[in-house]
Amino acid sequence: MNMQTLIKPLIQKNGSKIVYIVLDGVGGLPVNSRTELEAAVTPNLDAMAAESACGLHTPVALGITPGSGPGHLGIFGYDPVDYQIGRGVLEALGLGLEIRNTDVAVRCNYATIKNGVMIDRRAGRIPTEVGRKLTERLQNEIKKIDEAEIILAAGMEYRFAVIMRFPEPLAPDAAMINDTDPQKEGKAPLPPSPMSGSAERVSRVAEKLISTAAEILKSEEKANFILTRGFSNMPHIPTFEEAFGLNAIAIATYPMYRGLARLVGMNTPVVEGTVEDQISFLKQKYNDYDFFFLHVKKVDSYGEDGNFEGKAERISEFDRLLPQIMNLNPEVVVVTGDHSTPCLMKSHSWHPVPVMIRSPFVLGRTCTGFSERECLKGELAILPAANLMPLTLAHAGRLKKFGA
Amino acid sequence: MNMQTLIKPLIQKNGSKIVYIVLDGVGGLPVNSRTELEAAVTPNLDAMAAESACGLHTPVALGITPGSGPGHLGIFGYDPVDYQIGRGVLEALGLGLEIRNTDVAVRCNYATIKNGVMIDRRAGRIPTEVGRKLTERLQNEIKKIDEAEIILAAGMEYRFAVIMRFPEPLAPDAAMINDTDPQKEGKAPLPPSPMSGSAERVSRVAEKLISTAAEILKSEEKANFILTRGFSNMPHIPTFEEAFGLNAIAIATYPMYRGLARLVGMNTPVVEGTVEDQISFLKQKYNDYDFFFLHVKKVDSYGEDGNFEGKAERISEFDRLLPQIMNLNPEVVVVTGDHSTPCLMKSHSWHPVPVMIRSPFVLGRTCTGFSERECLKGELAILPAANLMPLTLAHAGRLKKFGA
Repeated sequence: MNMQTLIKPLIQKNGSKIVYIVLDGVGGLPVNSRTELEAAVTPNLDAMAAESACGLHTPVALGITPGSGPGHLGIFGYDPVDYQIGRGVLEALGLGLEIRNTDVAVRCNYATIKNGVMIDRRAGRIPTEVGRKLTERLQNEIKKIDEAEIILAAGMEYRFAVIMRFPEPLAPDAAMINDTDPQKEGKAPLPPSPMSGSAERVSRVAEKLISTAAEILKSEEKANFILTRGFSNMPHIPTFEEAFGLNAIAIATYPMYRGLARLVGMNTPVVEGTVEDQISFLKQKYNDYDFFFLHVKKVDSYGEDGNFEGKAERISEFDRLLPQIMNLNPEVVVVTGDHSTPCLMKSHSWHPVPVMIRSPFVLGRTCTGFSERECLKGELAILPAANLMPLTLAHAGRLKKFGA
Repeated sequence: MNMQTLIKPLIQKNGSKIVYIVLDGVGGLPVNSRTELEAAVTPNLDAMAAESACGLHTPVALGITPGSGPGHLGIFGYDPVDYQIGRGVLEALGLGLEIRNTDVAVRCNYATIKNGVMIDRRAGRIPTEVGRKLTERLQNEIKKIDEAEIILAAGMEYRFAVIMRFPEPLAPDAAMINDTDPQKEGKAPLPPSPMSGSAERVSRVAEKLISTAAEILKSEEKANFILTRGFSNMPHIPTFEEAFGLNAIAIATYPMYRGLARLVGMNTPVVEGTVEDQISFLKQKYNDYDFFFLHVKKVDSYGEDGNFEGKAERISEFDRLLPQIMNLNPEVVVVTGDHSTPCLMKSHSWHPVPVMIRSPFVLGRTCTGFSERECLKGELAILPAANLMPLTLAHAGRLKKFGA
């Protein structure tokens, strides 16, 4: 039995507030013997760790490096192996598109084709600005195919995303369509062939989209064709309200994370500005929600760049702002990350991620600071990410006793 | 594969003795920076911890607060999610009734009804003594309905339990009967309608029980009706002998815990008196059994009352008696609790419970005392409660090698 099934009959509501802080990619590895968290100046996080239940979570499983989708689903309480998000959906969320249950999302490339075979699967890596203009042109000329509304969004360089929006909700297998990318130059593109009966209609729309786009782009030197990959529709995920009885809001400045939060039914207003602006927004909304997902992106960005000082400084910066959140006196505050991004590796990694849960009902005094090594001494030990939400609900008094 | 299936072919018998000590609700939380275990005077438990495999167990799962039933099933080696005990069965066990595989148990309330609708679902919370007399009267007038023997036991105030004992063992779904409590005053009681074919016969007995009781009680001012909830029958649990090859005895002074032990096939003589009396009883029976479940109730009772000094003193008291058990030189001694009951919360909680296993085959010297924080450093780390029995059997030399 998974945790959500177990806790569902135990959920009870109360007036408690939960602030769930995700420092994206916060976990790290030592450079000159100190990790990013150890090098950062974090008196507030350290004091909080001493009064919190601390540990480390594995986003998916030991040794598994998560993408942003699985990383967030895990800490949101959904086993990322049970709930997988399609590539097309993630790409579209990252580009700020909204996904509905009527939609199929697709990752697309501009490509160069000649005499029916691929010459360049990335259209010579055309600049982002060129891609953006081509995408605008396609959107101007293609509004609808059959009964499906077509929505496009440009990405970096040769990348873009397409949403095909149908008039009614789609079957779970409606997006089971093969990629058209032949994976090698010198081969012909593949047809977007359906792998299920309910995908046939979507496949016909995709075929027409590809041929129409080719017609529009035929005079382009490089980007004269499109390749489509990762056809996917919205996963069937219980909402935060259904799964946990929580009225939740995401306070995230990047479209991808608002999109992920929207997949689990959080409210996702557009928020812009600095982390301090995000916290001001949280204060404004504090009376209106039970659960606040505060997403701090820049920590991960510096990790991906391998900028150790930059990542540590982003953590120190957050530490200086933490008292503004603590002053609201939420019943439960959680601080963690969605995955590790060690500067040493310049990428996401599989390493367990420090986490602390602060409430009046912790053992505490097991750790003297918030870091990978200190959290190892904590009362939560190493736990699966998907267990964090049940623990958080317990600390908030939102879980009844199991059995008599 | 669950642990029981895994270990079943590995079980081997020998002459070893296992003393399994359950300090009910022993886990706690800091008050003035010390937990109940840290505040108690426990030189003997501390010395034992230094020579034991220590850790903490999660009775059900992270964040889940167990009732007494799931709490005990877990430490008895049965995953509490796989083996759920009905509310009626638990109520009946708590009132000292014996449950057989021919029985359906029901939790009942006296209630006030007028013109067919509920006026008071708890009959004005009649005093316990009044409830006891009414239950005696019902028992005198109702001995049998159809082929079912009817057995009643009074509880606190308006509560009582009923067992319907049929002539032959019942199907697993024979007790799937809806509650009759309408949950609100001003509504009519519901019929005890069956949710499965094999529950129809039981449902008919329940209907007649309710109407007969109403007839007997009709001249009562307050308690003129009965409401029935939590219809349940004995779960199909492998016995300790079947699951672990152990001839086990429970040494428990409270009916509820003897009842839970009986569910897993332990011998459950009535034992009364102090913890020292329980230990004397253990000594008397020492040659007759392999496994001794020693249940110390009062630790939990003080926890539920929020009496920190009282709970700590019950632990200190047990510590003074511990050498009497150690002097028997059992091959394995386990000390743990069925769940945490922090005085701070005055209730059961989800917090992992300290546990130590003493045998000649431990790593040891990881902890300097028996407490939540010390056990975090132990070689067992944090483990599911249902894994304690396989570990205990291993330490007793009762598990063969898996595979060649």
